[in-house]
Amino acid sequence: MAAIRVRLANRSLASGDRLPSIRGLAASMGVSPSTIAEAYDRLAAEGVIRSQRGSGFYVARRAAAPLVLADAEPRRDRAVDPFWVSRQSLDADPRITRPGCGWLPADWMPTAALRRALRGLARGADDLLTDYGNTRGTLALRRLLLAGFAEEGIVCTIDQVLLTTSGTQALDLVCRLLLRPGDIVLVDDPCYFNFRALLRAHQVTVIGLPYTQTGPDLAAFETALGQHRPRLYITNSALHNPTGATPTLQTVHRLLTLAKTHDLTIIEDDIFADFEPEPSPRLAGLDGFDRVIRIGSFSKTISASLRCGYIAARRDWIEDLIDLQIATNFSGPSPVVAEVVARVLTDGGYRKHKQALHLRLAHARQETAERLRALGVEPWAMPRGGFTLWCRLPDGLDSTAVAKAAMAEDVVLAPGNVFSTSQTAGAFMRFNVAQCADPHVWAVLRRALATAQQKTVQQEHAS
Amino acid sequence: MAAIRVRLANRSLASGDRLPSIRGLAASMGVSPSTIAEAYDRLAAEGVIRSQRGSGFYVARRAAAPLVLADAEPRRDRAVDPFWVSRQSLDADPRITRPGCGWLPADWMPTAALRRALRGLARGADDLLTDYGNTRGTLALRRLLLAGFAEEGIVCTIDQVLLTTSGTQALDLVCRLLLRPGDIVLVDDPCYFNFRALLRAHQVTVIGLPYTQTGPDLAAFETALGQHRPRLYITNSALHNPTGATPTLQTVHRLLTLAKTHDLTIIEDDIFADFEPEPSPRLAGLDGFDRVIRIGSFSKTISASLRCGYIAARRDWIEDLIDLQIATNFSGPSPVVAEVVARVLTDGGYRKHKQALHLRLAHARQETAERLRALGVEPWAMPRGGFTLWCRLPDGLDSTAVAKAAMAEDVVLAPGNVFSTSQTAGAFMRFNVAQCADPHVWAVLRRALATAQQKTVQQEHAS
Repeated sequence: MAAIRVRLANRSLASGDRLPSIRGLAASMGVSPSTIAEAYDRLAAEGVIRSQRGSGFYVARRAAAPLVLADAEPRRDRAVDPFWVSRQSLDADPRITRPGCGWLPADWMPTAALRRALRGLARGADDLLTDYGNTRGTLALRRLLLAGFAEEGIVCTIDQVLLTTSGTQALDLVCRLLLRPGDIVLVDDPCYFNFRALLRAHQVTVIGLPYTQTGPDLAAFETALGQHRPRLYITNSALHNPTGATPTLQTVHRLLTLAKTHDLTIIEDDIFADFEPEPSPRLAGLDGFDRVIRIGSFSKTISASLRCGYIAARRDWIEDLIDLQIATNFSGPSPVVAEVVARVLTDGGYRKHKQALHLRLAHARQETAERLRALGVEPWAMPRGGFTLWCRLPDGLDSTAVAKAAMAEDVVLAPGNVFSTSQTAGAFMRFNVAQCADPHVWAVLRRALATAQQKTVQQEHAS
Repeated sequence: MAAIRVRLANRSLASGDRLPSIRGLAASMGVSPSTIAEAYDRLAAEGVIRSQRGSGFYVARRAAAPLVLADAEPRRDRAVDPFWVSRQSLDADPRITRPGCGWLPADWMPTAALRRALRGLARGADDLLTDYGNTRGTLALRRLLLAGFAEEGIVCTIDQVLLTTSGTQALDLVCRLLLRPGDIVLVDDPCYFNFRALLRAHQVTVIGLPYTQTGPDLAAFETALGQHRPRLYITNSALHNPTGATPTLQTVHRLLTLAKTHDLTIIEDDIFADFEPEPSPRLAGLDGFDRVIRIGSFSKTISASLRCGYIAARRDWIEDLIDLQIATNFSGPSPVVAEVVARVLTDGGYRKHKQALHLRLAHARQETAERLRALGVEPWAMPRGGFTLWCRLPDGLDSTAVAKAAMAEDVVLAPGNVFSTSQTAGAFMRFNVAQCADPHVWAVLRRALATAQQKTVQQEHAS
């Protein structure tokens, strides 16, 4: 009975199909024909299949219905909150274009190296394929991370690195360890929208620091430290999300000096590191892992289908984080996944892939910026690397209205205020230059801008 | 420079080794010899390598030291708390035997089907290998779960199932949604030790219900409902951990009736389902997903190296859980991993593997029970399936003392009180019958029992 139900569920048997013969199925499953006959009889009694005299059993018309349900598309009437972009981007039908999403198209990823790694893994040791692995995560991958830190001049040891199931889970674990409801946390304004969603789940008070072309506004940072005694500051290193800006060495140094004076811990999200053509100054590069905690993942440049992140931090915090990860996830990322990531990182092809990716992205940034400017959409900064362009819409148009109009035509955009704690980024929008190749994007964007423009004019006339 | 540091980190270059020639490395990396020469000069300036006139470059003695650090073994002096068994079992040197751990040896797992699935995946579509996937998790795997629920007679739809990164994370997400600090939660006494660790992280009050051969003590359940107004009850279906007992149909029915009267939600952890020779009555089988939430994973019978769990629950709860999973992990399990699990589940070899596994475990249960009885260690019940034997030690010996003595001889045991909220299981111990083949286990257990016995006698003489 289960075997037939599985076939109905995975659509290998559809409504009206003839079922395998009793003798044939009995032979292939290694059971007696009477067992199959009884199962068919019971399924027929349930109305899942029907018997046709002299001809065999057939799938009943209504049988397949409750099981083969496909996912509904995401609700489009949902409020445009920090979850809006995530859920629209992740769950949209594959034919929907997503210039608002935060990842590269599949054909920009190192698929050849991924396939090599998977084939290698299929020949791997039994225990690698079946065991939980150790509590800190696959040693080979932690060693590679350590080598990267050494390259930055950071002195640390292997027991300061913990693998996690994602960059987001890395941040979540640290927040669970260090935050209590009601604590004050600083973020950039704008910042990655999911920082806001995550911090809301932790019931903390979030304060945004205006983000400038050289990093967070230092005067605002100093004021916030004095006034609010925040427990944490969470920011991006290398390339800021959504602006693509890079903090300068002076900003990094002054942030750390102020953090020390006020005994503040800083979480540096290094997720975009591999998009940098040349490494930029980083908080941990100056501080080590003293008051800086670094988190990151491999989703952006290797694969988002391999969920794996990491935390590098003080040894005593890592010990506590291991217990917390056991309690809440039993172990870390899939050892199979961490092994594939390690294999791709040491695959000769990956370095070349990365170099080609930098060039391809630089080209896409230039081209997208030009096309946006032609529509009156102005990049706030030209990033050194990565896929984001943070842009101001013409004449202060409301980007949420533009995003809603585009969504009605199957294009997911990322309106500015999902990134903003102060809700002051309504005139901004984040574009993913790697997801803008489809001409449909530009036709829809042009129309959506015009629609929003019209509404603004109507409102002005009305007032 | 990075390339050499990576080789030092992953031990492909060790202290004293000769580095590749400048020309050779330049050719293989596709850069000019002068680039390599400059990198070598800088590494030499840092003291990582040294140049030997006329002979090339060599790894300096001290260079490799900070990078090639291996993990330290877990601390053995750690308190025997709910984390003790997890960390000793997961992090122990591979040569250490683990009759206390909660998983099967690698050669008991369906490795042939796993290898087939990985090879198939290496030929999969680009987006499967690189994308986040949708927020509910791989459709193919959810459909298989749904087919299994249908087999139990549970009517539900695909939007009532959410994939998670593990069974533990499934439980954690549900607790984050439904619990607030200070809430009361019922568990079995004894219960899976990590339930206790997880609930501690949620800062709730945990009340244990004595577990009987037919399921939780119903009188204690009714009293607890009346006195404490608990928010949740968390239990195992099919095969209880650690006792291996199965709740009867009467118990399941009465639990649900009482739960309804007191508006209690029950989480049913179905992780051991595939170990059952015949399916037993389950809470969701009677209730559907009304007040029962089912969680589970594939770690025990498919692979623990493929981190993937699930939640089946009310539709509105699943919607909230999706947001919570995005906020705290961005997406669910690796799509690559969920795909491998789905392929193994539909692999013809898996069904046969499962049947053979049931026989092998039945044999191991019998044999282990006999050997334990010969040492005066008495199984509390003979489970219908699975790998656990919950046993009473002779003459009320303290199982923590026995576990510590065994640990000193490199054998990880699972003492009863790590499973017990009331700390009344000191005379019990959980044995994993699949991990008891090594004769060393039996020699050490015999000595550890004798050591604990001696201590008890000495204490009696002293008092």
